[in-house]
Amino acid sequence: MRPQIVLFGDSITQQSFRSGGWGAALADTYSRKADIVNRGYGGYNTRWALFLLHHLFPLDSTKPPVAATVFFGANDAALLGRSSERQHVPIEEYKENLRKIVRHLKECSPTVLVVLITPPPVDEAGRKEYAQSVYGEKADELPERTNEVTRLYAEQCIELAKEMGLCSVDLWSKMQEREGWQKKFLSDGLHLTPEGNAVVHQEVVRVFNEAWLSAPEMSYDFPHHSQIDGKDPEKAFQQRCL
Amino acid sequence: MRPQIVLFGDSITQQSFRSGGWGAALADTYSRKADIVNRGYGGYNTRWALFLLHHLFPLDSTKPPVAATVFFGANDAALLGRSSERQHVPIEEYKENLRKIVRHLKECSPTVLVVLITPPPVDEAGRKEYAQSVYGEKADELPERTNEVTRLYAEQCIELAKEMGLCSVDLWSKMQEREGWQKKFLSDGLHLTPEGNAVVHQEVVRVFNEAWLSAPEMSYDFPHHSQIDGKDPEKAFQQRCL
Repeated sequence: MRPQIVLFGDSITQQSFRSGGWGAALADTYSRKADIVNRGYGGYNTRWALFLLHHLFPLDSTKPPVAATVFFGANDAALLGRSSERQHVPIEEYKENLRKIVRHLKECSPTVLVVLITPPPVDEAGRKEYAQSVYGEKADELPERTNEVTRLYAEQCIELAKEMGLCSVDLWSKMQEREGWQKKFLSDGLHLTPEGNAVVHQEVVRVFNEAWLSAPEMSYDFPHHSQIDGKDPEKAFQQRCL
Repeated sequence: MRPQIVLFGDSITQQSFRSGGWGAALADTYSRKADIVNRGYGGYNTRWALFLLHHLFPLDSTKPPVAATVFFGANDAALLGRSSERQHVPIEEYKENLRKIVRHLKECSPTVLVVLITPPPVDEAGRKEYAQSVYGEKADELPERTNEVTRLYAEQCIELAKEMGLCSVDLWSKMQEREGWQKKFLSDGLHLTPEGNAVVHQEVVRVFNEAWLSAPEMSYDFPHHSQIDGKDPEKAFQQRCL
């Protein structure tokens, strides 16, 4: 009955229902109007995400999502020759994989609203502190991700959105507008603090509003309780449910 | 693909994806294992909830929920002759309405795990402070809900669970075990603080674990990223997805 909005991405999506998370906040924004479905897969890059497409978004679905956020790149941008190289995806392939994801979503539903989100910026010092807190002296001296390389992936994401006429959120740039973004928005140099989650929530809501998916303009799925006549409740439900 | 757990209730369910909310926390607990679907309707009592049953839980659904929390009573217990009397439902009817809800869910799926949750306790002083903050001098002197009357509804809820062999959470009693529950768990004498939400989350997880719906025993819907061979990713997906 309610439309579905799917959040497709990596750990930053998977963790988005933790306290202060952007996914939960979105579920609250669209309360009684749309269901927010979390399809975040921690550690995944776009290459691995392709294996999920037909399972998560079957082409013969009678009720495909009305909107989807596609939020990958943080893992694709892991550097070759460093500790996370297993997750690395070359930048040209990253862009093509994103294109395949979007095409598949559009094949499921030509009217689906797709929002591409760039990876957040990387705070290399924060990543290093985190690695040392986990691995101690065994932590790699060299960063496994850099902000400059992640920038290149973010640029490809935005370029693809322009090429395909899609909405997008340039999270990489947006977060860096704020002084002290490194600690304000990132908990370990890569994942989001509650404040960082709030930026994603705010930007996604802004983009949805600018498109046609504005929560304030959507109606509740059933009568608001104040519209129900205590002595004749059936009336309110006849009007709205038949 | 993922099983669905539906949260059916009033505002305490509807608001459960706000920051610190028990619904969002449940979604995080069952991350990549089950989808948490919010079907909370602020202000609703069990009488009005009955109008929604066939819409929310159609009998011919091919994929009914595997579990549901049924969390009503806070509005049913509103007092006659006071400002919220429109929401009042006589106590015998409350119990019978709950029974109808459970029977309908079981008709949708005989194996569904139904958990009845009693209304939380009422802090009359907190309700009064809240009313004065909203209505000033116009606020009613007399409480529109009392903790003692809500207790009677909670007892009927627990009794029904026993009669029908269902799991239940006696939130009314559980919360009052803690000294200072009035301000610790309730934000306005009726709705939940983040700490109050944590109690609901903890109790629902406990009951699900004691039944057969334990998140740690459920497998991820797709391979954990550490199981994916960077050089031969297809292998992990062939094993799990075919």
